[in-house]
Amino acid sequence: MVIKEFSFELLAQNENARLGKIYTPRGIIETPAFMPVGTLGTVKGVYVEDLIKTNSQIILGNTYHLMLRPGVEVLKKFKGLHNFMNWKKPILTDSGGFQIMSLSKFNKIDRNIGAIFKSHLDGTKIILSPELSIQIQKNINSDIMMVLDECPKYTNDKKVISNAIETSTQWAKRCKIEFGINKKKALFGIVQGGLFEDLRLESLANLKDLNFDGYAMGGLAVGETQFEMQEILKKTVSYMPIKKPRYLMGVGTPSDILVAVKEGIDMFDCVMPTRSGRTGLAFTWQGKINLKNSKYKLDKTPLDKTTNLRNINMYSKSYLNHLIKTNELLASMIISLHNINFYQEFMKKMRTSIKEKKFNKFYNKYYKLFN
Amino acid sequence: MVIKEFSFELLAQNENARLGKIYTPRGIIETPAFMPVGTLGTVKGVYVEDLIKTNSQIILGNTYHLMLRPGVEVLKKFKGLHNFMNWKKPILTDSGGFQIMSLSKFNKIDRNIGAIFKSHLDGTKIILSPELSIQIQKNINSDIMMVLDECPKYTNDKKVISNAIETSTQWAKRCKIEFGINKKKALFGIVQGGLFEDLRLESLANLKDLNFDGYAMGGLAVGETQFEMQEILKKTVSYMPIKKPRYLMGVGTPSDILVAVKEGIDMFDCVMPTRSGRTGLAFTWQGKINLKNSKYKLDKTPLDKTTNLRNINMYSKSYLNHLIKTNELLASMIISLHNINFYQEFMKKMRTSIKEKKFNKFYNKYYKLFN
Repeated sequence: MVIKEFSFELLAQNENARLGKIYTPRGIIETPAFMPVGTLGTVKGVYVEDLIKTNSQIILGNTYHLMLRPGVEVLKKFKGLHNFMNWKKPILTDSGGFQIMSLSKFNKIDRNIGAIFKSHLDGTKIILSPELSIQIQKNINSDIMMVLDECPKYTNDKKVISNAIETSTQWAKRCKIEFGINKKKALFGIVQGGLFEDLRLESLANLKDLNFDGYAMGGLAVGETQFEMQEILKKTVSYMPIKKPRYLMGVGTPSDILVAVKEGIDMFDCVMPTRSGRTGLAFTWQGKINLKNSKYKLDKTPLDKTTNLRNINMYSKSYLNHLIKTNELLASMIISLHNINFYQEFMKKMRTSIKEKKFNKFYNKYYKLFN
Repeated sequence: MVIKEFSFELLAQNENARLGKIYTPRGIIETPAFMPVGTLGTVKGVYVEDLIKTNSQIILGNTYHLMLRPGVEVLKKFKGLHNFMNWKKPILTDSGGFQIMSLSKFNKIDRNIGAIFKSHLDGTKIILSPELSIQIQKNINSDIMMVLDECPKYTNDKKVISNAIETSTQWAKRCKIEFGINKKKALFGIVQGGLFEDLRLESLANLKDLNFDGYAMGGLAVGETQFEMQEILKKTVSYMPIKKPRYLMGVGTPSDILVAVKEGIDMFDCVMPTRSGRTGLAFTWQGKINLKNSKYKLDKTPLDKTTNLRNINMYSKSYLNHLIKTNELLASMIISLHNINFYQEFMKKMRTSIKEKKFNKFYNKYYKLFN
């Protein structure tokens, strides 16, 4: 099937949980979808061929990181990130807003100019305007681009958040203009507003006026409780356009994902599977397993005997316990790959449960297991 | 072909360079052979399945490291290292002598007892006797075991070295007794003697009296020049039994290996391919490539376009330059695997050159390239 344009199809609904498909010229993404994070042009510790075997259909790249390293010159040379890293399926890029808040030093927002900050690597002063963010995302050859937003640190100061929305709305407009018309690609708006319902709805209304290809919830999973996140999703998501994909940025644990799918979210990204992989935390159908725990020292059973991927089931918990305790690279490699594979299996079963109108049963079973 | 006993077959000779086969119940090892090092039960950064694809026929395990972590209890539970790490082909284990010298603290040699030292991890006092070293190697289920030797630090003090030989000879005897009779396995003696011809020959004569299954040259590649190493090999190797495998421990670079094969050595082990892999140094048919060098920043060519292993040839030097500069795990993974694969290709071509009586041509071509 040759796909020429970006589009979204809503296939089924089970209460608010949605089953859908995102079509892009680089491939189809079944939703609810989980996107592994490839911060610097590699999903940490995972070979691209193995990533494909996990049934990952899209990955995320970070504009902030990629503009610093390898930089636009290199990405241009390769006509984008796909060729550079040998990942031929779709890539979504965040705009840099979140990293400017969380990583860079001395960041300052000038509504008329853009974000002014110093690189976390060498302190170089950088000005990232909405236009530049889109230009870089175009050089990455991203399939789904995100608008540059002002992402305030976790706060209850309504005025700060309200002001950030005003900036973000203006920047979203400028991003849309810079993006231009390209039916092969998509540009998503990012809803801000912290935990304030009225601000979220205001932000969303502003973005809807601009008619984006999809809508993301930003500024969550930044310190609030899961209950608070759920509450604001409950109040906001139903106002998001039905026929556009809905993306919850930077989320999360399997239980976070369940909570958000229940409210009608379609897309997720998170470093959880790989970051946990590097510290020895595995996600399995039996729940979370901390492989550092000495109770696994003599445990000859595999992490998951049903996993067929790359003979991962031939490694015992005992062996993984040894590898993680001795800081061996192979521990990060095996557990990261296992976790991404688990996440994708989890999403697949979740999609099946929506299709079969059994999402609540699935939710109840696994929410407890992972919370 | 079912192999029931350890044996060695000398197939051809080209001047002093030898072509042979080591037969073990776990598989055949073509010599000259290179053994990747799996210090702690994993060849760093390499999946076992990929290691098999590099045509590695045997790997090395470290008794010193494995006795500390995971420890004998775990190894016993798995009936050895093969099952623990899922490597079913032969394993050679060193005895711990070298690590006691190079890694442990406050090591002291008591000829009657053994090596007394403190663990480099937590300072625990450990006594490793010749008997215990063999017992641990039996628990590892090693296919080729090494005698425990006293491995003095690099020195020109003849008395120190002479004394170490005396200890090592006595320990070799005790190891042989502890090893007992087991035709499926092999026990190798280790020739010491520094750069002194007379001491090397004395050590070798003592070991020959004990009739080992193979003979190793120890205490080289510890600080001497390549020329000094070559000179002492020239003077010693021809006295080693013709019908037993000859192993040069801890060596080395491709040019070191060429020099030693020229003198009649059959087996090698070295951390070079994996350690270099982690710092961005790649071995290729075009010579050594330091992938950290910024001249590769925009280089779209692969490391080695002839490599079919695991699609490694799809990664450009530019991408590897980026990965190594950003300390990404994938850099270590790709370059380590590439290097082991290169070493094994190098050994294979070297074996062909001996078979075809063209070793000198091979030597001249690649000695220059890698020196």
